[in-house]
Amino acid sequence: QSDGKVSNWYDNIHIGGYMQLRYDNLFETNENLDCEQCDENWGLEGGGLSFRRLRFKIKGQITPRIFFYFQPDFAKSIGEEHHVGRLKDAYIDVGLDSKNEYRIRIGQSKVPFGFENMQSSSNRLPLDRDDALNSAVKDERDLGVFFYWATKEKRQLIKELRKAGLSGGDFGLIALGFYNGQTANHFDQNNEFHVVSRFSYPLELGHQVIEPGIQAYTGKYVVTEHSSSIAVDTEGYLDQRAAVSFVLYPRPFGIQAEYNVGKGPEYDKATNTIQVKPLQGGYATFSYYVEKWGQKFYPFVRLQYYDGGKKHELDARSYDVHDAEVGLEWHPFPHFEFLAEYTYSDRRYEDFTNTANHQKGSLFRVQAQLKF
Amino acid sequence: QSDGKVSNWYDNIHIGGYMQLRYDNLFETNENLDCEQCDENWGLEGGGLSFRRLRFKIKGQITPRIFFYFQPDFAKSIGEEHHVGRLKDAYIDVGLDSKNEYRIRIGQSKVPFGFENMQSSSNRLPLDRDDALNSAVKDERDLGVFFYWATKEKRQLIKELRKAGLSGGDFGLIALGFYNGQTANHFDQNNEFHVVSRFSYPLELGHQVIEPGIQAYTGKYVVTEHSSSIAVDTEGYLDQRAAVSFVLYPRPFGIQAEYNVGKGPEYDKATNTIQVKPLQGGYATFSYYVEKWGQKFYPFVRLQYYDGGKKHELDARSYDVHDAEVGLEWHPFPHFEFLAEYTYSDRRYEDFTNTANHQKGSLFRVQAQLKF
Amino acid sequence: QSDGKVSNWYDNIHIGGYMQLRYDNLFETNENLDCEQCDENWGLEGGGLSFRRLRFKIKGQITPRIFFYFQPDFAKSIGEEHHVGRLKDAYIDVGLDSKNEYRIRIGQSKVPFGFENMQSSSNRLPLDRDDALNSAVKDERDLGVFFYWATKEKRQLIKELRKAGLSGGDFGLIALGFYNGQTANHFDQNNEFHVVSRFSYPLELGHQVIEPGIQAYTGKYVVTEHSSSIAVDTEGYLDQRAAVSFVLYPRPFGIQAEYNVGKGPEYDKATNTIQVKPLQGGYATFSYYVEKWGQKFYPFVRLQYYDGGKKHELDARSYDVHDAEVGLEWHPFPHFEFLAEYTYSDRRYEDFTNTANHQKGSLFRVQAQLKF
Repeated sequence: QSDGKVSNWYDNIHIGGYMQLRYDNLFETNENLDCEQCDENWGLEGGGLSFRRLRFKIKGQITPRIFFYFQPDFAKSIGEEHHVGRLKDAYIDVGLDSKNEYRIRIGQSKVPFGFENMQSSSNRLPLDRDDALNSAVKDERDLGVFFYWATKEKRQLIKELRKAGLSGGDFGLIALGFYNGQTANHFDQNNEFHVVSRFSYPLELGHQVIEPGIQAYTGKYVVTEHSSSIAVDTEGYLDQRAAVSFVLYPRPFGIQAEYNVGKGPEYDKATNTIQVKPLQGGYATFSYYVEKWGQKFYPFVRLQYYDGGKKHELDARSYDVHDAEVGLEWHPFPHFEFLAEYTYSDRRYEDFTNTANHQKGSLFRVQAQLKF
Repeated sequence: QSDGKVSNWYDNIHIGGYMQLRYDNLFETNENLDCEQCDENWGLEGGGLSFRRLRFKIKGQITPRIFFYFQPDFAKSIGEEHHVGRLKDAYIDVGLDSKNEYRIRIGQSKVPFGFENMQSSSNRLPLDRDDALNSAVKDERDLGVFFYWATKEKRQLIKELRKAGLSGGDFGLIALGFYNGQTANHFDQNNEFHVVSRFSYPLELGHQVIEPGIQAYTGKYVVTEHSSSIAVDTEGYLDQRAAVSFVLYPRPFGIQAEYNVGKGPEYDKATNTIQVKPLQGGYATFSYYVEKWGQKFYPFVRLQYYDGGKKHELDARSYDVHDAEVGLEWHPFPHFEFLAEYTYSDRRYEDFTNTANHQKGSLFRVQAQLKF
Repeated sequence: QSDGKVSNWYDNIHIGGYMQLRYDNLFETNENLDCEQCDENWGLEGGGLSFRRLRFKIKGQITPRIFFYFQPDFAKSIGEEHHVGRLKDAYIDVGLDSKNEYRIRIGQSKVPFGFENMQSSSNRLPLDRDDALNSAVKDERDLGVFFYWATKEKRQLIKELRKAGLSGGDFGLIALGFYNGQTANHFDQNNEFHVVSRFSYPLELGHQVIEPGIQAYTGKYVVTEHSSSIAVDTEGYLDQRAAVSFVLYPRPFGIQAEYNVGKGPEYDKATNTIQVKPLQGGYATFSYYVEKWGQKFYPFVRLQYYDGGKKHELDARSYDVHDAEVGLEWHPFPHFEFLAEYTYSDRRYEDFTNTANHQKGSLFRVQAQLKF
């Protein structure tokens, strides 16, 4: 049964979106080097231009207590069929008090684990998220119920940071939730929820703003992508991580650093099985903000490290990653960005079909982005 | 060749939509009991939260004579790839007279067979449509051409009922149409149209409104989903039904009841073939409307029965259904609903790969819904 | 990192779209005659009504220098799953000067080869594009970077022609670009770009407007759809064409004619291989514009011819096409069109699985179109 409607739908409902177009093959020194989690077109035979993200969103605070967000992406593939429309976000925020300091988020949304995971890709400087924390929640999202709390003052600060393109959204000071645990657009497999919690605290120190944070989750993950000769536990494998985050927003010098430790499924070469193993890794990004000739420039450097399995890849593929990136993001006009980045990568990644795979190399990648 | 455009597109074109998020596994007594037509996640191994519907619509009366409606759904699956964007509705209404009392609807739209089929899922009380009438037109829609007629006065009454969240849309007092007959998003298979007609008459009796209706369709349906060892007639099987509907709108006590009889393809266990067999079944829903503390409550009970084949399921699966449901829909805020329902179900459903399958059991299901 | 937003999003962002619904089976004299490139439902077993295009677009000149265009289509299929949402256009126009006379278009957009290819299907008179030039860029689009230049005056004229439903969009007087070369929604296969250029010049001669144009492209195309026993060159085959275009806009009598010659992959029956072979073909459409009783009528005739391979079809299928069409487009109301067309077709099309296939026949096809 439905309720009344507002007269001017467009005052409450907003449409926006963004597009990212890339070329990943410049000065590539090793064509066997790729990163499935980063960008499927990196290292792909053929090369050429590719879309990384192609999204529009419909969102709105349709009543004082109800906010919704719906975002499909048309850069997805189903088998060899590309640019298929699939869901990214679909959630409802229900305010529990009149100031919406207490909120319940219901639906497919970002799991509050990792600052970079929660930050929009349209705002991030490096082309792809770090392996270390992003391997905790591939696609950053899951179907769940999340409780968020933040004071009105801190929500205002978060909003200002977001409008300045610095933050990733309002995930509260305290976050607590449960979710299916098989990552976005995958059905639950074991009727057991993952549980997550996060605490963060953005703090103004004179002109600077810092945001320290801690977070942890636990659950059981069922490995669904596996070689036919690899036995898997259909109840799932222990999947448990804790992380620390530190952000100094770029005014003009910025730091973003995170580290996580935990346990999860990982392919074991010696026994040809998937086992629960320890994992750890993190990254640090250093950036600088320059405004000149009415344009904006963000030079940056990122270092990252990861040692562990990737549960969502074939056979919970075993990884050892050491990457270094140097790049520049340039905003010649509002809404439009251009980014160029040089990556040096040293990656061991092994599964049943590829038991000895250690690739090193470097490449230059470029991206044009529109945000509307 | 194109024509002029209006200056403010947003005055004529509206955007809306709705989302339904469910948990189907509470207190489940029989995990082998499911209902493919109701909700693919009911009884699914794994369980967890799931989206049932995830739609936005673009619609508008863009000229006095032309109305359009376009609605994709992002809760669909293609194989194991979930949350893919697929079409629900895409149609044009062409008014034949200046008052639009006579209209032609062209495109993929709801087939005027069954009140509950035509009512929006966002307005229905029970979580899923009844088996008996919904098995006539799975997904309720097909590609066709439909003529609708209603007087201006009755169209106004229907509009008021719809705005109150009670009706399902304006399908006229008289409906007459033809359509491919293989249900929505399926191509025609035999170059023969189905033909349908419906008469209904909403009537104000003091403060109460009732709406009796009758409808029937006939055509030939080609069974496309079948076991490899089952022979099927590529010309199609006779698919023919007639139904009566009765609605007493809940002011505050409501009744909605429908019954249909007919013939259609059904798996025959004895001969291991698909044969045209008689079918019958219906349902009755009783509801009550309570407004209290600025919130709305709709307790309801539904009983349903179906004996016949389901043409769109594997081998035109043979069914015998007796279900009882008790539930409560709660609207704590405008645009947001929460529904909890207890179901007792007794279902025999058999096909070539599962020739002896009679399941009984009960479960508790919950749903959160947003409508914008 | 993001930038400021406008306050009223709907003043800068527009939503529109169109739908085409067809019936392709009237008076069909040869059910084996079809045209994969024209309309997959032509000649399909089953027949019935079908959607040919089902699109909405989100677009906007969001800043003086930045324009974007995003258009999905929900009439696409993935295997046997129909009406799936897939991308058509997604591009950004970046103005290089304050008058936007010089523009760079980045993303998936129409390749500037052929007037009819670039014209919107919602404006074209015949139901499908011609085989001769459309086989150069199936789906008309590719992922690339295109430079366009036109004077402000000519851009104004092009805009007026487009608003009158006559032109297909502003592709400049000079166009120069590079693109992946495997057509829209296909990844690059050989890390070599195609290169294209086009010159055209709309000219007012009294009340009449003519537009002559020339264009050419070159690249290497990798044949990805092929029978398993056919060997293909993974580096790709030479794919090179040049074309002339002539348009007399219908005031009231119109002519549209194009012809292209070139080389490209084509199935060779004698040796059972794919070889680079010469190709040629073109078409001429004659139309007349009548306005009567407040309605619009466009009778038309088209003749076309093509002799060559179709690189994007199975085994670069070999073709010999002679078609004649007579039709009438009728606009009873703004936004709504009805089109009926009679086609006589003589087509030889052969690949490894069908080495002797010469079909002749005629049929009558009808279409309803909405544009919003």
